[in-house]
Amino acid sequence: MTNISGILSDRRTIRKYSSEPVDDTLINELITMGCRASTTGNMQLYSIIINREDGKKKELAPLHFNQKMITEAPVVLTFCADFNRFNKWCRLRNADPGYDNFLSFVTAAIDALILAQTICIAAEAKGLGICYLGTTTYNAHKIIEVLKLPKGVVPITTVTLGWPAEKPEQVDRIPFDAVIHKEIYHNYSNESIAEFYKAKENRADSQQFVNENNKLSLAQVFTDVRYKKADNVHFSKILLNVLKEQGFMEQ
Amino acid sequence: MTNISGILSDRRTIRKYSSEPVDDTLINELITMGCRASTTGNMQLYSIIINREDGKKKELAPLHFNQKMITEAPVVLTFCADFNRFNKWCRLRNADPGYDNFLSFVTAAIDALILAQTICIAAEAKGLGICYLGTTTYNAHKIIEVLKLPKGVVPITTVTLGWPAEKPEQVDRIPFDAVIHKEIYHNYSNESIAEFYKAKENRADSQQFVNENNKLSLAQVFTDVRYKKADNVHFSKILLNVLKEQGFMEQ
Repeated sequence: MTNISGILSDRRTIRKYSSEPVDDTLINELITMGCRASTTGNMQLYSIIINREDGKKKELAPLHFNQKMITEAPVVLTFCADFNRFNKWCRLRNADPGYDNFLSFVTAAIDALILAQTICIAAEAKGLGICYLGTTTYNAHKIIEVLKLPKGVVPITTVTLGWPAEKPEQVDRIPFDAVIHKEIYHNYSNESIAEFYKAKENRADSQQFVNENNKLSLAQVFTDVRYKKADNVHFSKILLNVLKEQGFMEQ
Repeated sequence: MTNISGILSDRRTIRKYSSEPVDDTLINELITMGCRASTTGNMQLYSIIINREDGKKKELAPLHFNQKMITEAPVVLTFCADFNRFNKWCRLRNADPGYDNFLSFVTAAIDALILAQTICIAAEAKGLGICYLGTTTYNAHKIIEVLKLPKGVVPITTVTLGWPAEKPEQVDRIPFDAVIHKEIYHNYSNESIAEFYKAKENRADSQQFVNENNKLSLAQVFTDVRYKKADNVHFSKILLNVLKEQGFMEQ
Protein backbone atom coordinates (compact mmCIF):
# COMPACT_ATOMS: atom_id res chain seq x y z
CA MET A 1 0.00 0.00 0.00
CA THR A 2 2.94 2.38 -0.26
CA ASN A 3 3.10 2.94 -4.03
CA ILE A 4 1.94 6.49 -4.37
CA SER A 5 0.84 6.23 -8.01
CA GLY A 6 -1.36 3.29 -7.10
CA ILE A 7 -2.79 5.07 -4.06
CA LEU A 8 -3.67 8.21 -6.00
CA SER A 9 -4.94 6.42 -9.11
CA ASP A 10 -7.04 3.74 -7.42
CA ARG A 11 -8.62 5.84 -4.71
CA ARG A 12 -12.31 6.34 -4.09
CA THR A 13 -14.20 8.29 -1.46
CA ILE A 14 -15.25 6.10 1.47
CA ARG A 15 -18.51 6.82 3.29
CA LYS A 16 -18.87 3.60 5.31
CA TYR A 17 -16.39 2.75 8.02
CA SER A 18 -15.73 -0.38 10.07
CA SER A 19 -15.96 -0.34 13.85
CA GLU A 20 -12.18 -0.81 14.13
CA PRO A 21 -10.79 2.17 16.07
CA VAL A 22 -8.30 4.62 14.58
CA ASP A 23 -5.78 5.27 17.29
CA ASP A 24 -4.43 8.64 18.33
CA THR A 25 -0.85 7.73 17.42
CA LEU A 26 -1.86 7.19 13.81
CA ILE A 27 -3.89 10.42 13.65
CA ASN A 28 -0.97 12.33 15.14
CA GLU A 29 1.40 10.80 12.61
CA LEU A 30 -0.87 11.82 9.72
CA ILE A 31 -1.20 15.39 11.00
CA THR A 32 2.54 15.66 11.57
CA MET A 33 3.11 14.63 7.94
CA GLY A 34 0.45 17.11 6.85
CA CYS A 35 2.27 19.93 8.62
CA ARG A 36 5.32 19.35 6.39
CA ALA A 37 3.26 20.50 3.39
CA SER A 38 3.80 23.97 1.95
CA THR A 39 2.39 26.90 3.93
CA THR A 40 2.49 30.62 3.14
CA GLY A 41 5.68 32.16 4.54
CA ASN A 42 5.83 29.23 6.98
CA MET A 43 3.05 30.88 8.99
CA GLN A 44 0.95 27.67 9.24
CA LEU A 45 -2.33 29.56 9.15
CA TYR A 46 -4.52 26.61 10.07
CA SER A 47 -5.99 24.62 12.91
CA ILE A 48 -7.63 21.22 12.98
CA ILE A 49 -10.50 20.38 15.29
CA ILE A 50 -10.52 16.64 15.97
CA ASN A 51 -13.89 15.20 16.90
CA ARG A 52 -14.15 11.66 18.18
CA GLU A 53 -16.75 11.90 20.93
CA ASP A 54 -20.46 11.34 20.32
CA GLY A 55 -21.57 14.60 21.91
CA LYS A 56 -19.97 17.03 19.50
CA LYS A 57 -20.44 14.72 16.51
CA LYS A 58 -24.18 14.72 17.18
CA GLU A 59 -24.18 18.50 17.34
CA LEU A 60 -22.25 18.70 14.07
CA ALA A 61 -24.40 16.17 12.18
CA PRO A 62 -27.37 18.44 11.32
CA LEU A 63 -24.95 21.19 10.22
CA HIS A 64 -23.70 18.73 7.61
CA PHE A 65 -27.31 17.98 6.57
CA ASN A 66 -27.21 14.75 8.60
CA GLN A 67 -24.79 13.00 6.27
CA LYS A 68 -24.29 9.85 8.32
CA MET A 69 -20.48 9.88 8.03
CA ILE A 70 -20.30 12.52 10.75
CA THR A 71 -21.72 10.25 13.44
CA GLU A 72 -20.53 6.95 11.95
CA ALA A 73 -16.89 7.78 11.24
CA PRO A 74 -14.54 7.31 14.20
CA VAL A 75 -12.77 10.58 13.42
CA VAL A 76 -14.06 13.89 12.09
CA LEU A 77 -11.52 16.56 11.20
CA THR A 78 -12.61 20.17 10.67
CA PHE A 79 -9.91 22.17 8.89
CA CYS A 80 -9.92 25.86 9.71
CA ALA A 81 -8.26 28.92 8.24
CA ASP A 82 -6.68 30.31 11.43
CA PHE A 83 -5.06 33.73 11.86
CA ASN A 84 -6.00 33.84 15.55
CA ARG A 85 -2.89 32.02 16.76
CA PHE A 86 -0.56 34.07 14.55
CA ASN A 87 -2.25 37.34 15.58
CA LYS A 88 -1.85 36.44 19.25
CA TRP A 89 1.83 35.78 18.71
CA CYS A 90 2.24 39.12 16.93
CA ARG A 91 0.52 41.03 19.73
CA LEU A 92 2.58 39.25 22.37
CA ARG A 93 5.75 40.40 20.56
CA ASN A 94 4.77 44.04 20.02
CA ALA A 95 3.97 43.50 16.37
CA ASP A 96 0.77 44.92 14.85
CA PRO A 97 -0.91 42.21 12.74
CA GLY A 98 -2.59 43.46 9.55
CA TYR A 99 -4.50 40.29 8.77
CA ASP A 100 -8.11 41.35 9.23
CA ASN A 101 -8.82 41.43 5.51
CA PHE A 102 -10.05 39.26 2.65
CA LEU A 103 -6.60 38.44 1.20
CA SER A 104 -5.54 37.10 4.58
CA PHE A 105 -8.62 34.88 4.74
CA VAL A 106 -7.84 33.44 1.30
CA THR A 107 -4.19 32.90 2.28
CA ALA A 108 -5.18 31.00 5.43
CA ALA A 109 -7.83 29.01 3.55
CA ILE A 110 -5.20 27.92 1.01
CA ASP A 111 -2.92 26.80 3.86
CA ALA A 112 -5.77 24.84 5.47
CA LEU A 113 -6.71 23.07 2.23
CA ILE A 114 -3.16 22.08 1.35
CA LEU A 115 -2.90 20.64 4.87
CA ALA A 116 -6.24 18.82 4.54
CA GLN A 117 -5.40 17.13 1.26
CA THR A 118 -1.94 16.09 2.46
CA ILE A 119 -3.50 14.44 5.51
CA CYS A 120 -6.10 12.74 3.29
CA ILE A 121 -3.42 11.27 1.03
CA ALA A 122 -1.33 10.18 4.03
CA ALA A 123 -4.45 8.53 5.48
CA GLU A 124 -5.29 6.72 2.26
CA ALA A 125 -1.70 5.50 2.03
CA LYS A 126 -2.23 3.87 5.44
CA GLY A 127 -5.36 2.14 4.14
CA LEU A 128 -7.83 4.53 5.76
CA GLY A 129 -10.81 5.88 3.86
CA ILE A 130 -11.80 9.54 3.75
CA CYS A 131 -14.74 11.67 2.69
CA TYR A 132 -14.76 15.45 2.24
CA LEU A 133 -17.90 17.29 3.31
CA GLY A 134 -18.58 20.41 1.28
CA THR A 135 -21.26 21.43 3.76
CA THR A 136 -18.69 23.16 6.00
CA THR A 137 -18.82 26.43 4.06
CA TYR A 138 -22.64 26.31 3.98
CA ASN A 139 -23.02 26.20 7.74
CA ALA A 140 -19.76 27.81 8.83
CA HIS A 141 -21.64 30.13 11.21
CA LYS A 142 -23.18 27.22 13.11
CA ILE A 143 -20.00 25.15 13.08
CA ILE A 144 -18.22 28.16 14.60
CA GLU A 145 -20.69 28.05 17.49
CA VAL A 146 -20.48 24.31 18.08
CA LEU A 147 -16.68 24.15 17.88
CA LYS A 148 -16.21 27.48 19.74
CA LEU A 149 -14.05 29.01 17.02
CA PRO A 150 -12.82 32.48 18.02
CA LYS A 151 -12.44 35.55 15.78
CA GLY A 152 -9.75 34.96 13.16
CA VAL A 153 -10.82 31.34 12.60
CA VAL A 154 -13.13 30.09 9.81
CA PRO A 155 -13.92 26.40 9.11
CA ILE A 156 -13.15 25.58 5.45
CA THR A 157 -13.71 21.88 5.01
CA THR A 158 -14.46 18.73 6.97
CA VAL A 159 -13.06 15.25 6.44
CA THR A 160 -14.45 12.04 7.93
CA LEU A 161 -11.97 9.26 8.38
CA GLY A 162 -11.97 5.58 9.30
CA TRP A 163 -11.15 2.06 8.13
CA PRO A 164 -13.17 1.30 4.98
CA ALA A 165 -16.24 -0.93 5.23
CA GLU A 166 -17.05 -0.59 1.53
CA LYS A 167 -15.26 -0.51 -1.79
CA PRO A 168 -17.51 1.47 -4.13
CA GLU A 169 -16.89 1.76 -7.86
CA GLN A 170 -14.58 4.57 -8.85
CA VAL A 171 -16.60 7.54 -10.08
CA ASP A 172 -16.09 8.90 -13.58
CA ARG A 173 -14.00 11.91 -14.47
CA ILE A 174 -14.17 14.14 -17.53
CA PRO A 175 -11.25 13.64 -19.95
CA PHE A 176 -7.79 14.95 -19.11
CA ASP A 177 -7.89 17.35 -22.09
CA ALA A 178 -10.97 19.03 -20.62
CA VAL A 179 -9.09 20.41 -17.61
CA ILE A 180 -5.77 21.55 -19.08
CA HIS A 181 -4.84 24.53 -21.19
CA LYS A 182 -1.44 25.03 -22.82
CA GLU A 183 0.14 28.51 -22.40
CA ILE A 184 -3.25 30.31 -22.35
CA TYR A 185 -6.86 29.40 -21.63
CA HIS A 186 -8.51 28.07 -24.78
CA ASN A 187 -12.19 28.61 -24.30
CA TYR A 188 -14.61 25.77 -25.03
CA SER A 189 -16.81 25.47 -28.08
CA ASN A 190 -20.23 23.83 -27.79
CA GLU A 191 -18.76 20.90 -29.71
CA SER A 192 -15.89 20.42 -27.25
CA ILE A 193 -18.24 20.69 -24.26
CA ALA A 194 -20.55 18.06 -25.77
CA GLU A 195 -17.56 15.82 -26.41
CA PHE A 196 -16.07 16.25 -22.90
CA TYR A 197 -19.36 15.53 -21.09
CA LYS A 198 -20.61 12.80 -23.43
CA ALA A 199 -19.35 9.82 -21.44
CA LYS A 200 -20.70 11.27 -18.18
CA GLU A 201 -24.12 11.94 -19.72
CA ASN A 202 -24.30 8.45 -21.20
CA ARG A 203 -23.62 6.59 -17.95
CA ALA A 204 -26.45 4.44 -16.67
CA ASP A 205 -26.39 6.14 -13.26
CA SER A 206 -26.58 9.56 -14.89
CA GLN A 207 -29.60 8.52 -16.92
CA GLN A 208 -31.16 7.19 -13.74
CA PHE A 209 -30.62 10.54 -11.95
CA VAL A 210 -32.27 12.34 -14.85
CA ASN A 211 -35.28 10.00 -14.86
CA GLU A 212 -35.72 9.87 -11.09
CA ASN A 213 -35.74 13.64 -10.89
CA ASN A 214 -37.96 14.11 -13.94
CA LYS A 215 -35.38 16.28 -15.63
CA LEU A 216 -34.46 16.67 -19.28
CA SER A 217 -30.68 16.54 -18.83
CA LEU A 218 -28.01 15.62 -16.30
CA ALA A 219 -27.01 19.29 -16.12
CA GLN A 220 -30.54 20.08 -14.91
CA VAL A 221 -30.09 17.63 -12.04
CA PHE A 222 -27.19 19.81 -10.89
CA THR A 223 -28.84 23.19 -11.43
CA ASP A 224 -32.38 22.30 -10.29
CA VAL A 225 -31.82 19.63 -7.63
CA ARG A 226 -28.29 19.24 -6.27
CA TYR A 227 -26.71 22.73 -6.41
CA LYS A 228 -29.52 25.22 -6.75
CA LYS A 229 -29.10 28.94 -7.29
CA ALA A 230 -31.39 29.86 -4.38
CA ASP A 231 -29.27 27.79 -1.98
CA ASN A 232 -26.02 29.17 -3.36
CA VAL A 233 -27.23 32.75 -3.00
CA HIS A 234 -28.50 32.08 0.52
CA PHE A 235 -25.28 30.46 1.71
CA SER A 236 -23.12 33.07 -0.06
CA LYS A 237 -24.68 35.80 2.08
CA ILE A 238 -24.14 33.76 5.22
CA LEU A 239 -20.53 32.94 4.35
CA LEU A 240 -19.66 36.57 3.54
CA ASN A 241 -21.19 37.53 6.86
CA VAL A 242 -19.11 34.85 8.60
CA LEU A 243 -15.95 36.40 7.13
CA LYS A 244 -17.06 39.78 8.48
CA GLU A 245 -17.92 38.39 11.92
CA GLN A 246 -14.66 36.46 12.14
CA GLY A 247 -12.69 39.61 11.35
CA PHE A 248 -11.63 39.18 7.72
CA MET A 249 -13.49 42.01 5.97
CA GLU A 250 -11.92 45.16 7.37
CA GLN A 251 -10.61 47.65 4.79
CA MET B 1 11.03 6.90 -3.64
CA THR B 2 7.60 5.33 -3.32
CA ASN B 3 7.20 5.27 0.46
CA ILE B 4 4.56 7.88 1.06
CA SER B 5 5.43 8.52 4.71
CA GLY B 6 9.02 9.21 3.70
CA ILE B 7 7.98 11.46 0.84
CA LEU B 8 5.66 13.55 2.98
CA SER B 9 7.95 13.69 6.02
CA ASP B 10 11.24 14.45 4.26
CA ARG B 11 9.98 16.96 1.73
CA ARG B 12 11.19 20.49 1.26
CA THR B 13 10.22 23.23 -1.17
CA ILE B 14 12.54 23.34 -4.19
CA ARG B 15 13.30 26.68 -5.84
CA LYS B 16 16.26 25.66 -8.04
CA TYR B 17 15.79 23.23 -10.89
CA SER B 18 18.19 21.34 -13.14
CA SER B 19 18.12 21.81 -16.92
CA GLU B 20 16.81 18.26 -17.33
CA PRO B 21 13.46 18.47 -19.14
CA VAL B 22 10.21 17.27 -17.61
CA ASP B 23 8.36 15.49 -20.36
CA ASP B 24 4.72 15.87 -21.24
CA THR B 25 3.94 12.23 -20.53
CA LEU B 26 5.02 12.66 -16.91
CA ILE B 27 3.07 15.92 -16.48
CA ASN B 28 0.00 14.28 -17.97
CA GLU B 29 0.38 11.32 -15.63
CA LEU B 30 0.59 13.65 -12.60
CA ILE B 31 -2.47 15.62 -13.66
CA THR B 32 -4.44 12.44 -14.34
CA MET B 33 -3.63 11.27 -10.79
CA GLY B 34 -4.60 14.70 -9.47
CA CYS B 35 -8.00 14.45 -11.12
CA ARG B 36 -8.78 11.34 -9.04
CA ALA B 37 -8.77 13.51 -5.90
CA SER B 38 -12.05 14.52 -4.28
CA THR B 39 -14.10 17.22 -6.03
CA THR B 40 -17.43 18.76 -5.02
CA GLY B 41 -20.29 16.71 -6.44
CA ASN B 42 -17.85 15.38 -9.06
CA MET B 43 -18.12 18.73 -10.85
CA GLN B 44 -14.32 19.15 -11.25
CA LEU B 45 -14.50 22.93 -10.92
CA TYR B 46 -10.93 23.59 -11.93
CA SER B 47 -8.59 24.18 -14.83
CA ILE B 48 -4.81 24.09 -15.04
CA ILE B 49 -2.84 26.41 -17.29
CA ILE B 50 0.46 24.76 -18.19
CA ASN B 51 3.26 27.19 -19.07
CA ARG B 52 6.48 25.86 -20.56
CA GLU B 53 7.36 28.47 -23.19
CA ASP B 54 9.57 31.48 -22.48
CA GLY B 55 7.11 34.05 -23.83
CA LYS B 56 4.29 33.55 -21.34
CA LYS B 57 6.68 32.76 -18.47
CA LYS B 58 8.38 36.14 -19.00
CA GLU B 59 5.00 37.85 -18.93
CA LEU B 60 4.05 36.02 -15.74
CA ALA B 61 7.35 36.67 -13.93
CA PRO B 62 6.70 40.29 -12.82
CA LEU B 63 3.20 39.33 -11.65
CA HIS B 64 4.91 36.94 -9.25
CA PHE B 65 7.26 39.73 -8.13
CA ASN B 66 10.04 38.31 -10.34
CA GLN B 67 10.57 35.25 -8.22
CA LYS B 68 13.06 33.48 -10.45
CA MET B 69 11.32 30.09 -10.32
CA ILE B 70 8.78 31.29 -12.88
CA THR B 71 11.36 31.68 -15.65
CA GLU B 72 13.81 29.04 -14.41
CA ALA B 73 11.42 26.14 -13.77
CA PRO B 74 10.66 24.01 -16.84
CA VAL B 75 6.97 23.87 -15.92
CA VAL B 76 4.66 26.45 -14.35
CA LEU B 77 1.16 25.34 -13.39
CA THR B 78 -1.53 27.91 -12.61
CA PHE B 79 -4.47 26.31 -10.82
CA CYS B 80 -7.79 28.04 -11.41
CA ALA B 81 -11.22 27.87 -9.83
CA ASP B 82 -13.27 27.27 -12.98
CA PHE B 83 -17.05 27.40 -13.27
CA ASN B 84 -16.87 28.51 -16.91
CA ARG B 85 -16.70 24.98 -18.33
CA PHE B 86 -19.51 23.72 -16.09
CA ASN B 87 -21.69 26.76 -16.86
CA LYS B 88 -21.20 26.22 -20.60
CA TRP B 89 -22.27 22.60 -20.22
CA CYS B 90 -25.37 23.65 -18.25
CA ARG B 91 -26.39 26.21 -20.88
CA LEU B 92 -25.84 23.72 -23.70
CA ARG B 93 -28.21 21.33 -21.92
CA ASN B 94 -31.00 23.81 -21.15
CA ALA B 95 -30.03 24.05 -17.51
CA ASP B 96 -29.77 27.44 -15.80
CA PRO B 97 -26.51 27.59 -13.79
CA GLY B 98 -26.76 29.46 -10.48
CA TYR B 99 -23.03 29.68 -9.81
CA ASP B 100 -22.35 33.40 -10.10
CA ASN B 101 -21.97 33.87 -6.35
CA PHE B 102 -19.37 33.80 -3.56
CA LEU B 103 -20.17 30.28 -2.30
CA SER B 104 -19.59 28.91 -5.79
CA PHE B 105 -16.22 30.66 -5.98
CA VAL B 106 -15.17 29.12 -2.66
CA THR B 107 -16.39 25.69 -3.79
CA ALA B 108 -14.36 25.88 -7.00
CA ALA B 109 -11.31 27.24 -5.16
CA ILE B 110 -11.45 24.25 -2.78
CA ASP B 111 -11.60 21.88 -5.78
CA ALA B 112 -8.61 23.64 -7.39
CA LEU B 113 -6.48 23.47 -4.23
CA ILE B 114 -7.19 19.80 -3.55
CA LEU B 115 -6.16 19.13 -7.15
CA ALA B 116 -3.00 21.26 -6.81
CA GLN B 117 -1.78 19.55 -3.67
CA THR B 118 -2.47 16.08 -5.05
CA ILE B 119 -0.40 16.89 -8.13
CA CYS B 120 2.40 18.31 -5.93
CA ILE B 121 2.55 15.13 -3.86
CA ALA B 122 2.46 12.95 -6.99
CA ALA B 123 5.31 15.08 -8.42
CA GLU B 124 7.41 14.81 -5.29
CA ALA B 125 6.87 11.05 -5.26
CA LYS B 126 8.43 10.99 -8.75
CA GLY B 127 11.46 12.91 -7.45
CA LEU B 128 10.39 16.28 -8.82
CA GLY B 129 10.63 19.44 -6.73
CA ILE B 130 7.82 21.96 -6.38
CA CYS B 131 7.30 25.48 -5.09
CA TYR B 132 3.96 27.18 -4.41
CA LEU B 133 3.72 30.88 -5.27
CA GLY B 134 1.31 32.77 -3.02
CA THR B 135 1.53 35.76 -5.34
CA THR B 136 -1.25 34.40 -7.56
CA THR B 137 -4.02 35.87 -5.42
CA TYR B 138 -2.18 39.22 -5.22
CA ASN B 139 -2.04 39.74 -8.96
CA ALA B 140 -4.99 37.63 -10.07
CA HIS B 141 -6.28 40.50 -12.24
CA LYS B 142 -3.06 40.66 -14.26
CA ILE B 143 -2.67 36.88 -14.46
CA ILE B 144 -6.23 36.75 -15.86
CA GLU B 145 -5.11 39.08 -18.66
CA VAL B 146 -1.90 37.22 -19.47
CA LEU B 147 -3.48 33.76 -19.42
CA LYS B 148 -6.72 34.97 -21.10
CA LEU B 149 -8.97 33.59 -18.37
CA PRO B 150 -12.66 34.11 -19.20
CA LYS B 151 -15.47 35.03 -16.80
CA GLY B 152 -16.07 32.21 -14.31
CA VAL B 153 -12.35 31.50 -13.94
CA VAL B 154 -10.08 32.81 -11.14
CA PRO B 155 -6.42 31.80 -10.63
CA ILE B 156 -5.90 30.52 -7.08
CA THR B 157 -2.34 29.33 -6.82
CA THR B 158 0.73 28.67 -8.95
CA VAL B 159 3.21 25.82 -8.67
CA THR B 160 6.64 25.70 -10.31
CA LEU B 161 7.98 22.26 -11.00
CA GLY B 162 11.23 20.64 -12.14
CA TRP B 163 14.00 18.25 -11.22
CA PRO B 164 15.72 19.54 -8.04
CA ALA B 165 19.10 21.25 -8.33
CA GLU B 166 19.30 21.91 -4.58
CA LYS B 167 18.54 20.17 -1.32
CA PRO B 168 17.88 22.91 1.21
CA GLU B 169 17.50 22.27 4.93
CA GLN B 170 13.99 21.45 6.01
CA VAL B 171 12.30 24.49 7.47
CA ASP B 172 10.98 24.44 11.03
CA ARG B 173 7.37 23.90 12.03
CA ILE B 174 5.57 24.89 15.21
CA PRO B 175 4.77 21.93 17.50
CA PHE B 176 2.01 19.49 16.61
CA ASP B 177 0.04 20.50 19.73
CA ALA B 178 -0.12 24.08 18.45
CA VAL B 179 -2.31 23.21 15.49
CA ILE B 180 -4.78 20.69 16.90
CA HIS B 181 -7.78 21.08 19.14
CA LYS B 182 -9.71 18.21 20.66
CA GLU B 183 -13.53 18.38 20.39
CA ILE B 184 -13.60 22.22 20.57
CA TYR B 185 -11.16 25.07 19.94
CA HIS B 186 -9.14 25.73 23.05
CA ASN B 187 -7.94 29.28 22.75
CA TYR B 188 -4.30 30.10 23.40
CA SER B 189 -2.92 31.74 26.52
CA ASN B 190 0.09 34.06 26.26
CA GLU B 191 2.09 31.31 27.93
CA SER B 192 1.14 28.69 25.36
CA ILE B 193 1.85 31.09 22.47
CA ALA B 194 5.30 31.87 23.92
CA GLU B 195 5.94 28.16 24.30
CA PHE B 196 4.76 27.22 20.78
CA TYR B 197 6.83 29.94 19.06
CA LYS B 198 9.94 29.68 21.28
CA ALA B 199 11.94 27.31 19.05
CA LYS B 200 11.14 29.37 15.95
CA GLU B 201 12.15 32.61 17.65
CA ASN B 202 15.39 31.12 18.92
CA ARG B 203 16.61 29.85 15.54
CA ALA B 204 19.80 31.49 14.25
CA ASP B 205 18.12 32.41 10.94
CA SER B 206 15.21 34.02 12.78
CA GLN B 207 17.60 36.12 14.88
CA GLN B 208 19.39 37.11 11.68
CA PHE B 209 16.08 38.25 10.07
CA VAL B 210 15.32 40.36 13.13
CA ASN B 211 18.79 41.98 13.11
CA GLU B 212 18.99 42.56 9.36
CA ASN B 213 15.62 44.30 9.39
CA ASN B 214 16.33 46.30 12.55
CA LYS B 215 13.27 44.86 14.25
CA LEU B 216 12.62 44.00 17.89
CA SER B 217 11.01 40.61 17.28
CA LEU B 218 10.53 37.97 14.60
CA ALA B 219 6.80 38.73 14.59
CA GLN B 220 7.65 42.33 13.57
CA VAL B 221 9.54 40.97 10.54
CA PHE B 222 6.22 39.45 9.42
CA THR B 223 3.99 42.43 10.20
CA ASP B 224 6.37 45.25 9.15
CA VAL B 225 8.38 43.68 6.32
CA ARG B 226 7.08 40.45 4.82
CA TYR B 227 3.26 40.62 5.11
CA LYS B 228 2.33 44.24 5.71
CA LYS B 229 -1.17 45.51 6.45
CA ALA B 230 -1.05 48.12 3.66
CA ASP B 231 -0.25 45.45 1.06
CA ASN B 232 -2.90 43.09 2.39
CA VAL B 233 -5.55 45.82 2.31
CA HIS B 234 -4.50 46.84 -1.21
CA PHE B 235 -4.58 43.32 -2.61
CA SER B 236 -7.82 42.46 -0.76
CA LYS B 237 -9.61 45.21 -2.67
CA ILE B 238 -8.17 44.00 -5.96
CA LEU B 239 -9.06 40.37 -5.25
CA LEU B 240 -12.64 41.18 -4.26
CA ASN B 241 -12.92 43.18 -7.48
CA VAL B 242 -11.56 40.21 -9.44
CA LEU B 243 -14.31 38.03 -7.99
CA LYS B 244 -16.86 40.62 -9.10
CA GLU B 245 -15.36 40.96 -12.59
CA GLN B 246 -15.14 37.20 -13.04
CA GLY B 247 -18.80 36.83 -12.12
CA PHE B 248 -18.77 35.47 -8.58
CA MET B 249 -20.37 38.30 -6.60
CA GLU B 250 -23.97 38.42 -7.88
CA GLN B 251 -26.67 38.25 -5.22
